[in-house]
Amino acid sequence: MSYETFFQNNREQHLNELKEWLSIPSISALSAHKADVNKAASWLEEKLKSAGLEHVEVHQTNGHPIITADYLHAPGKPTILVYGHYDVQPVDPLNLWTTPPFEPDIREGKLYARGATDDKGQLFLHVKAVEAILREEKELPVNIKFCIEGEEEISSASLPPFLDANKDKLATDAIIISDTSLLEPGKPAISTGLRGLCSLEIEINTANTDLHSGTFGGGVPNALHAIVELLATLHDKQGRVAVEGFYQGVPELSSMMREEFAKQNMDEQALTNKLGLETLYGEEGYSFVERTGARPTLELNGVYGGFQGEGTKTVIPKEALAKITCRLVGDQDPQDILDKIKVHLNSHVPTGATLKITDGEKARAFNIDPTDRVLQVAADAYASVYGTRALFTKDGGSIPIVETFSRVLGAPVVMMGFGLPDENLHAPDEHFNLENFDKGLLTIVEFLKTV
Amino acid sequence: MSYETFFQNNREQHLNELKEWLSIPSISALSAHKADVNKAASWLEEKLKSAGLEHVEVHQTNGHPIITADYLHAPGKPTILVYGHYDVQPVDPLNLWTTPPFEPDIREGKLYARGATDDKGQLFLHVKAVEAILREEKELPVNIKFCIEGEEEISSASLPPFLDANKDKLATDAIIISDTSLLEPGKPAISTGLRGLCSLEIEINTANTDLHSGTFGGGVPNALHAIVELLATLHDKQGRVAVEGFYQGVPELSSMMREEFAKQNMDEQALTNKLGLETLYGEEGYSFVERTGARPTLELNGVYGGFQGEGTKTVIPKEALAKITCRLVGDQDPQDILDKIKVHLNSHVPTGATLKITDGEKARAFNIDPTDRVLQVAADAYASVYGTRALFTKDGGSIPIVETFSRVLGAPVVMMGFGLPDENLHAPDEHFNLENFDKGLLTIVEFLKTV
Repeated sequence: MSYETFFQNNREQHLNELKEWLSIPSISALSAHKADVNKAASWLEEKLKSAGLEHVEVHQTNGHPIITADYLHAPGKPTILVYGHYDVQPVDPLNLWTTPPFEPDIREGKLYARGATDDKGQLFLHVKAVEAILREEKELPVNIKFCIEGEEEISSASLPPFLDANKDKLATDAIIISDTSLLEPGKPAISTGLRGLCSLEIEINTANTDLHSGTFGGGVPNALHAIVELLATLHDKQGRVAVEGFYQGVPELSSMMREEFAKQNMDEQALTNKLGLETLYGEEGYSFVERTGARPTLELNGVYGGFQGEGTKTVIPKEALAKITCRLVGDQDPQDILDKIKVHLNSHVPTGATLKITDGEKARAFNIDPTDRVLQVAADAYASVYGTRALFTKDGGSIPIVETFSRVLGAPVVMMGFGLPDENLHAPDEHFNLENFDKGLLTIVEFLKTV
Repeated sequence: MSYETFFQNNREQHLNELKEWLSIPSISALSAHKADVNKAASWLEEKLKSAGLEHVEVHQTNGHPIITADYLHAPGKPTILVYGHYDVQPVDPLNLWTTPPFEPDIREGKLYARGATDDKGQLFLHVKAVEAILREEKELPVNIKFCIEGEEEISSASLPPFLDANKDKLATDAIIISDTSLLEPGKPAISTGLRGLCSLEIEINTANTDLHSGTFGGGVPNALHAIVELLATLHDKQGRVAVEGFYQGVPELSSMMREEFAKQNMDEQALTNKLGLETLYGEEGYSFVERTGARPTLELNGVYGGFQGEGTKTVIPKEALAKITCRLVGDQDPQDILDKIKVHLNSHVPTGATLKITDGEKARAFNIDPTDRVLQVAADAYASVYGTRALFTKDGGSIPIVETFSRVLGAPVVMMGFGLPDENLHAPDEHFNLENFDKGLLTIVEFLKTV
């Protein structure tokens, strides 16, 4: 029986199982759902066992459980580790859901539920692909391991120490993750880069009290004047970050990556219109996909001080604050970048102001060479199912755990996503297009058989 | 009987009357106190009548009543118009008052109540001074008029049209206002200038929605980048306003004014310490009292956009806002200044941003030549009571009605204040130091007899 026929025959059963899992509200952020998170973990534990996996273990952590399993009966063949997560985002605002988030519903070929695409639906494909091969062939063409967590939506605090402590047990030739998206329907993509992240908050103080602008205006420092003057120094007139050394460790774009980016055929005018922009904007000499995929950025996420109410208040604020994040690429080290920003800020503090800086998050960029054999095999696997080879892209966002997996286990990561960009992850009416459910199963089988 | 003896003999009676007035919560801003505001007006009406004034009239307006009265029996002598207000500020936060704001209480020579110094207490002095002269001498040495409002704390909307409509009735040789402060205890001052005001709000827009900094960071405009870049252009490195033409109409400081400012002996280091400043800051070549008294300023009163909560939010804000006020001096025209700021802002809009500007308040600066005879007489009146002549100062704040009175009635305004800078006007525990209650009565009598 072809796998196409096998999955066709078992489609209703598979979807019913997935719906059962999706109906468990495993919201990791809310302590009231602690029991649901455990229930979703137990559900997966049982499914891994019934799929034929061995050594299925549920590891308690300070947060939510990590589940591992394996099937290691292909000596001489590569080992592939599957990562995914069974926790989901909160569901507010509830009134914007067409059907309740934990009552899965199929409409027009799409499965609606919280977690449908992020990540229960995509992770489920791997369980069922392995199960299918074991049913049909009684053996796997590779050695396989699973390492599944329940804290992805709350920063994966327990996973890095778990990886460190279980390096040998989790040793692998490649890590495969399905938690990203195609570029658009029918246009698969494998991300070969995720930007890193660092964040900081700054506080400017100029006095021990807010002052009246009549009595004091023109004679004392104003915290808002100081902060806009300081923040305006962070970029030059060409939109580049003006912090000395910021671009050290940023790789030049290879002609191969430029070609891959160009293949995306991003319609910049359509994007400009959709977002209501005057114009796209960024570093000269780069396209939008290059700027967001392969170039670092420093963004002001919040700036505030003084009076925000209706009308006028003639106040000279004593303090002003700003929140800043950077997206990093290549070898940029988050701590090094934070240090350089601090040097810059400290050397530009305006007269009369004192500056306090607080470090926040830090994550390195992830990069993988698209010529890596497993990525080429994965791209071909997409081609055999979708009729079009996956493009190698770079994502502007940050998934810190990807870099951690790659670094700790010393193996390439294949981000083999089956979602779509408009599937409302983290939003009401999250869904998973079942065309990619079907094709995802086949693509994973093809990948495992050819890697 | 000397006036000193007269006021001594009547002190308890006077204070009891004032306490009665202060116990009426005439908060003009709160419609729930409309009846109280009317009651305070009626109270004053009766006191003006019993003091011996004639033509005591209560004029209804769209807001709160205006009260006029006169005593015009000194042909050939100057006419003096007294302005003041019987409305008071709200009293929140109530829990910070040592005794309730409308239960007047005398502690350590100070009368505590809302309105004690601003302005019922100071205005009351004029009523009692006139009453005293009429009791003692059966006639006044001048012609006197009163024009008292109940909307000073809510921008005096009804007064300017009332002045326009009653120019002839209110015609005068000088206007006297007691609604300001001595420099410090024992150091009287007459303000010869109030800064004008203009205000505006600006809104920067870059997109029709907030954007994720992972997906879009580095490829789209950021409203916060645009607003800090734009606002940073408003001042130069020397702290001067960089708007073209901003200083047109700003008079050079005369050597006489510089001498007057110097006489204040402002201890800049003590002020710096008290306010917790790194340093005073402003235009080079001017002292603190000159900067705040005689120079214009442009202040950011509020700047805000993006995320202000705890932690990090990787958002690229679609909009950012700022509130700006200017203090104006000399012949600076508020509308002209607003127009110049708009030209500046519109010519500095960063790439990718659209700018919306909304005009706010507009008031001209008030200035009077300190060599004016009535000001010299007033300074001497202080000298005869306080033993030290009043200094001529410039105030950084704005009291738009002063300029209106001066312009509409074409007469000099004498700001003969008897408050102190730390009497908590507009704040809990407002009070009036009774030393200045006593000396204020004598100073006004002396002024009326010598002007």
